[in-house]
Amino acid sequence: MTEEIVVIPGDGIGQEVVPAAVDVLQATGIGFEFVEATAGDHVAAEGGDPLPEETRALVADADATLFGAAGESAADVILPLRDAVGSFVNVRPARTYPGVDAVKPDMDIVFLRENTEGVYAGHESRLTDDVSTLTRVVSKSASERLAEYACDYAPDGFTVAHKANVMRETDGLFRDTVQSVAEENGVETDAALMDALAMHLCLRPEEYEVVVCPNLAGDVLSDLAAGLVGGLGLLPSANIGEERALFEPVHGTAPDIAGQGVANPCATVLSAAMLLDYLGYEEEGDAVRDAVEDGLAHGPRTPDLGGDASTADVTNDIIERL
Amino acid sequence: MTEEIVVIPGDGIGQEVVPAAVDVLQATGIGFEFVEATAGDHVAAEGGDPLPEETRALVADADATLFGAAGESAADVILPLRDAVGSFVNVRPARTYPGVDAVKPDMDIVFLRENTEGVYAGHESRLTDDVSTLTRVVSKSASERLAEYACDYAPDGFTVAHKANVMRETDGLFRDTVQSVAEENGVETDAALMDALAMHLCLRPEEYEVVVCPNLAGDVLSDLAAGLVGGLGLLPSANIGEERALFEPVHGTAPDIAGQGVANPCATVLSAAMLLDYLGYEEEGDAVRDAVEDGLAHGPRTPDLGGDASTADVTNDIIERL
Ligand SMILES: CC(C)[C@H](C(=O)O)[C@@H](O)C(=O)O
Ligand SMILES: CC(C)[C@H](C(=O)O)[C@@H](O)C(=O)O
Repeated sequence: MTEEIVVIPGDGIGQEVVPAAVDVLQATGIGFEFVEATAGDHVAAEGGDPLPEETRALVADADATLFGAAGESAADVILPLRDAVGSFVNVRPARTYPGVDAVKPDMDIVFLRENTEGVYAGHESRLTDDVSTLTRVVSKSASERLAEYACDYAPDGFTVAHKANVMRETDGLFRDTVQSVAEENGVETDAALMDALAMHLCLRPEEYEVVVCPNLAGDVLSDLAAGLVGGLGLLPSANIGEERALFEPVHGTAPDIAGQGVANPCATVLSAAMLLDYLGYEEEGDAVRDAVEDGLAHGPRTPDLGGDASTADVTNDIIERL
Repeated sequence: MTEEIVVIPGDGIGQEVVPAAVDVLQATGIGFEFVEATAGDHVAAEGGDPLPEETRALVADADATLFGAAGESAADVILPLRDAVGSFVNVRPARTYPGVDAVKPDMDIVFLRENTEGVYAGHESRLTDDVSTLTRVVSKSASERLAEYACDYAPDGFTVAHKANVMRETDGLFRDTVQSVAEENGVETDAALMDALAMHLCLRPEEYEVVVCPNLAGDVLSDLAAGLVGGLGLLPSANIGEERALFEPVHGTAPDIAGQGVANPCATVLSAAMLLDYLGYEEEGDAVRDAVEDGLAHGPRTPDLGGDASTADVTNDIIERL
């Protein structure tokens, strides 16, 4: 049975790195069926919806989707797409690589970010000319589902980020639910205030392996970790649902270098490796990760990593190492 | 006219660093009247309210308050105290010092954190067994007041942190209000998404000088900055109101070293220097900051900075340098 992969390059360097990752997926020899779809600022500029209904419908139906980046319309594209695959967790690994400059070497942390609620399920109102509100939502059921995933993912234990000293009811529910599901599963956890955690990640990142976060906390802490490992050029992510999933680099459209053929494809190639894992091709996923790691240590590098190679040079090097 | 300063050591190392800072304030020769008050876990343990009404009333009436730290009861103590002084901005400078180890040398950033609303003005409910909510509040008036302070504080310009791509109405109101007040005052600003900012602070902190933040964003980003400058031992803060203010180190009670006489008093002494500025003794405030900086470069150091000096050694050294 051929799996159908929807491919959405989007805007900016998405147009360069997504085709590169598709080349790598094709080089695995698995024989996926790729279906290309459009989204992003360039669609809106032509008078369309930044997320056309055909694209949404394709994603909601495919086995997996590989997404590049969207510009100004990012939130209007990526949030409904996460929803279209029924994604309840955003998996964001942040690790350093030998030979790649990092603020903090020896980091290897995976953030498991709640992907459906918090301020992202926010209902906002402008109550008066002076006052606006946003109603943040935290449910026991979403916290449980995330916790079950976390227990499978990290049977050796994890840290739960929260701000329950201020958001007592909502983050209290999140923290307590996640910790009690973990306890039932015999998985050890500790809880950390998100502000203190931001500090500790800078000082002693090697003490953390897996961090389970409410939605916005995960957004901020994973970007902070991206800073500590040296930027977004190497960070993949996966939006996992029960039956489908969406994979995307953590980086954006990089308008300053778009169209020059020098974008670093690694984050998207590593996202494609997470796609392989998700569909059960873990051996191939590992092979892609090894090829990227080898390439970073010994192969050509794009300018963001101090080299002068092109996207194509790096992609071909990865494919040769497979 | 003698100014009245309320002094609340609180819990843990608060009991050591607050008296040290009072010694430094006394050494300036200004002749304040100090009134000691209690708060924190140790009061609650004796059956009292962690924030006794007498303490709250004293703070609401004094010219300024110097606070140490509180343990488990921190939120129940510090949030009502910020309110008691009518504080609308929390000023949090995060800078590195020559000779003190930092993840990122050359940082010198001041966070101006909105201090009254956001999730801190949160109204929470447990709507059903499954669902809890928190209503986050952002007002034009609070954003304007913060912006006016920021324009005075940073006439050369500042960065506005927000997450208005997701919290469109609330953080949109915050960002737009702050930027339009700045424009009316001829102050340049740029706006930065708080997640991207967390990353950029790790990569290029030297590009930022003053960052104006919603309440929780300021909490997290300033703690992140504390991590980058090497920890909390040197970070002061000021909660500024129209007529009174409260000064506190950013660190907590440090239970692991409390009672040993080795706590680093610098963060509290630097908070006392901000108190001097607030009351109009800017020359004395500068003298205290210079003495701390000199002491860090040439004087004795507490164990958190790799030395073996006591709190008293460091305090006496600062006083001698005044
Ligand atoms: C574009 C934006 C809505 C998105 C988010 O906040 O989740 C982005 O920051 C991310 O982390 O993927
Ligand atoms: C103790 C807590 C309520 C407080 C806050 O969140 O403001 C603390 O983290 C701080 O930053 O002073």
